[in-house]
Amino acid sequence: MAFLLLSYPERGAVWRRVFHEAGEDLWVGTDEVRDAAAVTHLACWQPPDLSAYPSLRVLLSVGAGVDHMPPLPPGVALVRTVAPGIDRMVRDWVVMATLMLHRDMPTYLEGARQGRWQQHPVRLAASRRVGILGLGRIGRLAAETLAGLGFEVAGWSRSGTPLPGIETHGAAGLDAFLARTDILICLLPLTGSTRGLLNAGLFAKLPRGAHLVHAGRGAQLDMAALSDALDAGRLASAMLDVTDPEPLPADHPAWADPRIVITPHVAANTDPEEGARHALAVLSAWRAGRPLPGLVDPEAGY
Amino acid sequence: MAFLLLSYPERGAVWRRVFHEAGEDLWVGTDEVRDAAAVTHLACWQPPDLSAYPSLRVLLSVGAGVDHMPPLPPGVALVRTVAPGIDRMVRDWVVMATLMLHRDMPTYLEGARQGRWQQHPVRLAASRRVGILGLGRIGRLAAETLAGLGFEVAGWSRSGTPLPGIETHGAAGLDAFLARTDILICLLPLTGSTRGLLNAGLFAKLPRGAHLVHAGRGAQLDMAALSDALDAGRLASAMLDVTDPEPLPADHPAWADPRIVITPHVAANTDPEEGARHALAVLSAWRAGRPLPGLVDPEAGY
Ligand SMILES: NC(=O)c1ccc[n+]([C@@H]2O[C@H](COP(=O)([O-])OP(=O)(O)OC[C@H]3O[C@@H](n4cnc5c(N)ncnc54)[C@H](OP(=O)(O)O)[C@@H]3O)[C@@H](O)[C@H]2O)c1
Ligand SMILES: NC(=O)c1ccc[n+]([C@@H]2O[C@H](COP(=O)([O-])OP(=O)(O)OC[C@H]3O[C@@H](n4cnc5c(N)ncnc54)[C@H](OP(=O)(O)O)[C@@H]3O)[C@@H](O)[C@H]2O)c1
Repeated sequence: MAFLLLSYPERGAVWRRVFHEAGEDLWVGTDEVRDAAAVTHLACWQPPDLSAYPSLRVLLSVGAGVDHMPPLPPGVALVRTVAPGIDRMVRDWVVMATLMLHRDMPTYLEGARQGRWQQHPVRLAASRRVGILGLGRIGRLAAETLAGLGFEVAGWSRSGTPLPGIETHGAAGLDAFLARTDILICLLPLTGSTRGLLNAGLFAKLPRGAHLVHAGRGAQLDMAALSDALDAGRLASAMLDVTDPEPLPADHPAWADPRIVITPHVAANTDPEEGARHALAVLSAWRAGRPLPGLVDPEAGY
Repeated sequence: MAFLLLSYPERGAVWRRVFHEAGEDLWVGTDEVRDAAAVTHLACWQPPDLSAYPSLRVLLSVGAGVDHMPPLPPGVALVRTVAPGIDRMVRDWVVMATLMLHRDMPTYLEGARQGRWQQHPVRLAASRRVGILGLGRIGRLAAETLAGLGFEVAGWSRSGTPLPGIETHGAAGLDAFLARTDILICLLPLTGSTRGLLNAGLFAKLPRGAHLVHAGRGAQLDMAALSDALDAGRLASAMLDVTDPEPLPADHPAWADPRIVITPHVAANTDPEEGARHALAVLSAWRAGRPLPGLVDPEAGY
């Protein structure tokens, strides 16, 4: 059994210390691999050619998503990082983005560029209906915080699992959920069922002048449809942390669109210390035959 | 006894309805004043020449501030509007502004203008010390919400009144408060003691690279000193809802400074319905000889 981390040196140093303190061995980088056939656990963001590791049992993504991972051979478990820090960082970005659209920041930023002091009416959060696509670890946290600020919050998930104080909709309830949503927030994992979900058909089911906050994955969004929906007044503004493609080329028209605010996929960092501790938790669950924290369902894709 | 409201027609219509429902008379606008000597209560934003109303007993500001009101003759009480909607709106703007500076939005907005996809490290809210100048109705609400997001929050007020879960400093504790503050938020009323408070001397007491969120009053801020502090790296960025002067002229350099984000004094609107209900509460307290809600201490100026 051997645990291999492929990552940049700073993360490697932290993992090495945390593993060492726990009395666990860790190989960092391909240079330290003494015997590739001994590697049972591999943690990385960009996966290498997995055929080099014939004894692999667990592939661990050092981020919250696994959509970039290749199909795995049978018997290899796929795990995503589970860390409270990631959830809180994305929640903070989502709260910021929601408030920015709620409070007309795209209009004020454009006004500022022109030195224009022009006021628009202010609305209470309670008068704005927020809808969250995906009520997982992050979606639930965002829902609670936004409800705490007074927004009227609903959520949509595959299962429609109830959440105290939040109106929840299951897979079949998408249209009703969209019809009552003024600010739509996407916090879905990228899977076969969510790819391209944010498209013209979906935008058409939102109330006219709705807003979009996107912190899921770029490939869920049809950027041309977004631009059309903005031109048609169907959508009023959007805030994107993820785009299609990434990085967004310098000459992409979305950068210059005053109705769109873009951040370069920075809603969260995985804190190396939290990531390493999660990896140790995966290791000890694996040894004990317990369910792995962050285990991905290969069927569902998340 | 007569109650006169001087305001724009939309607010007038709402006040008239709310007063009517409560069985109270209201004059709206100077046209409706049948006898100026009968006016005992006057509600307005911009005050008229008060010598026209010799029987005035209560002057009510329809906003949260009274700094624009003239000195009053003896026996006339000055009242500011007290409304939960104002507090929540300013709180929302302050939370948005704090998150925007915490999450490097000025840098990302500037990057977006240049089509630049460049990531910077993300920090947890828990690693950022927020300091609030003024722990009144709005400051307390902002402190609670920001602490709920995980920020390390302290507050400064004249009295230093304790607040559960928040580190509080009194008037004499300003320097210690500033020394531990990474993001400084101003929610002070404008008075003789707070005019010009946000100046070079104060900025020098903050940790290098601190940030400023200003939602108090423009005249509390020395805008030239802000610009110098940004140039010197003393401050890293600022978000201003209030400026000096207001409106900020189109050619003022602060508009074009990528380290400064400006909104045109829109942290809150007074909801006319809430404002009218507060005015009725003032009226009935006045009749009963009870303390007036929102009464301003003429000595302290707030
Ligand atoms: N921008 C960034 O920097 C950043 C950082 C971290 C994460 N993210 C994104 O946020 C996503 C969510 O993270 P998380 O930790 O909250 O994930 P999670 O705990 O796995 O939750 C996923 C949620 O999405 C729902 N869902 C999945 N497929 C669905 C479908 N086809 N239809 C309806 N609902 C569906 C799930 O429904 P059930 O509850 O019924 O299972 C669940 O509520 C990540 O996958 C990633 O894309 C972005
Ligand atoms: N930008 C906007 O749209 C907008 C909207 C509404 C309000 N505001 C601003 O926000 C201000 C605060 O509103 P509020 O309702 O929270 O007022 P408040 O309830 O009267 O509270 C004022 C706070 O400031 C403190 N304070 C006053 N003078 C001080 C001094 N010289 N030194 C230290 N602390 C001092 C008070 O200390 P004590 O607790 O010891 O009395 C109190 O904590 C308003 O006056 C206005 O300037 C701005």
